[in-house]
Amino acid sequence: MLLPQLCPAPTGEGRYKVLLKGISPLLNAEVLQALRAMGHGDEVIVSDTNFPSESVARRTVLGRLLRIDNVTAAEAVAAILSVMPLDSFIDDAAARMEIVDVPDEIPPVQREVQQAIDVAEGEAWPMVSVERYAFYERAKKAYCVIQTGERRFYGCFAFTKGVLPPDGV
Amino acid sequence: MLLPQLCPAPTGEGRYKVLLKGISPLLNAEVLQALRAMGHGDEVIVSDTNFPSESVARRTVLGRLLRIDNVTAAEAVAAILSVMPLDSFIDDAAARMEIVDVPDEIPPVQREVQQAIDVAEGEAWPMVSVERYAFYERAKKAYCVIQTGERRFYGCFAFTKGVLPPDGV
Repeated sequence: MLLPQLCPAPTGEGRYKVLLKGISPLLNAEVLQALRAMGHGDEVIVSDTNFPSESVARRTVLGRLLRIDNVTAAEAVAAILSVMPLDSFIDDAAARMEIVDVPDEIPPVQREVQQAIDVAEGEAWPMVSVERYAFYERAKKAYCVIQTGERRFYGCFAFTKGVLPPDGV
Repeated sequence: MLLPQLCPAPTGEGRYKVLLKGISPLLNAEVLQALRAMGHGDEVIVSDTNFPSESVARRTVLGRLLRIDNVTAAEAVAAILSVMPLDSFIDDAAARMEIVDVPDEIPPVQREVQQAIDVAEGEAWPMVSVERYAFYERAKKAYCVIQTGERRFYGCFAFTKGVLPPDGV
């Protein structure tokens, strides 16, 4: 939804150049603080506008809701994963809320997010699917919830933070 | 003071790769939040261990002290300016506390910081000097104070945040 020049897609050599040098402008001060404060195994939930974001967020470690407003889920995920490494120690570091009664269907909103993940990681990194109520329970144990402007159904995702070695990726 | 592999110097094409991808590990969660929250014309004070950091910080906009511990002033400044643009609209966007009675002397701690500034900006960007008590008054009007591990005298600096245009640097 943002103009391309305001929110360039991350590329291998690309760097964001606005607001803070090298950091996506979608990452506001509170979101940056949270992503930096998270450690290995901590989880961030990216939610759509129908998810009970506020009530779930209050049960998370952070205890208050974060926002990346007015953008799609994929745009928010691209920004988050431009700085946050995924956890390669587990097989469900990236997860999507599955459609009720149609667990294998992947709607466009989730396909877009899958693409953002693959670009950020530089390889295919398929999301696992999580049943709706199981997703709610998982979300309550997360470090934080970031609500996006995504209005399409099932625009809800979970990402587990990984590690980066001292000498670089 | 950090091992080189833990704190690589920023270079033109270099990217920090630890803790958050592309962001210096010296920038902790609270510091990142503050730098992102600052706008054009807001100022950050980088202080040494003798500066009255806590009492001054309580009078700043943020109202509480931030820390980048256990590193020199130059290492902290390099990290801060790896993400924060300097204000090119004014001629004192980078300032140093001048030595009492020797205003033109630039001690090693300040020469190191000058080098970090020039590297971050990609050009010579000489600091202006500010008399000690004038520096205290300026510091109270700042957005925040970040205390470093710098133990050498006169390791105190002020930096005014600039802007970056929507389409890049």
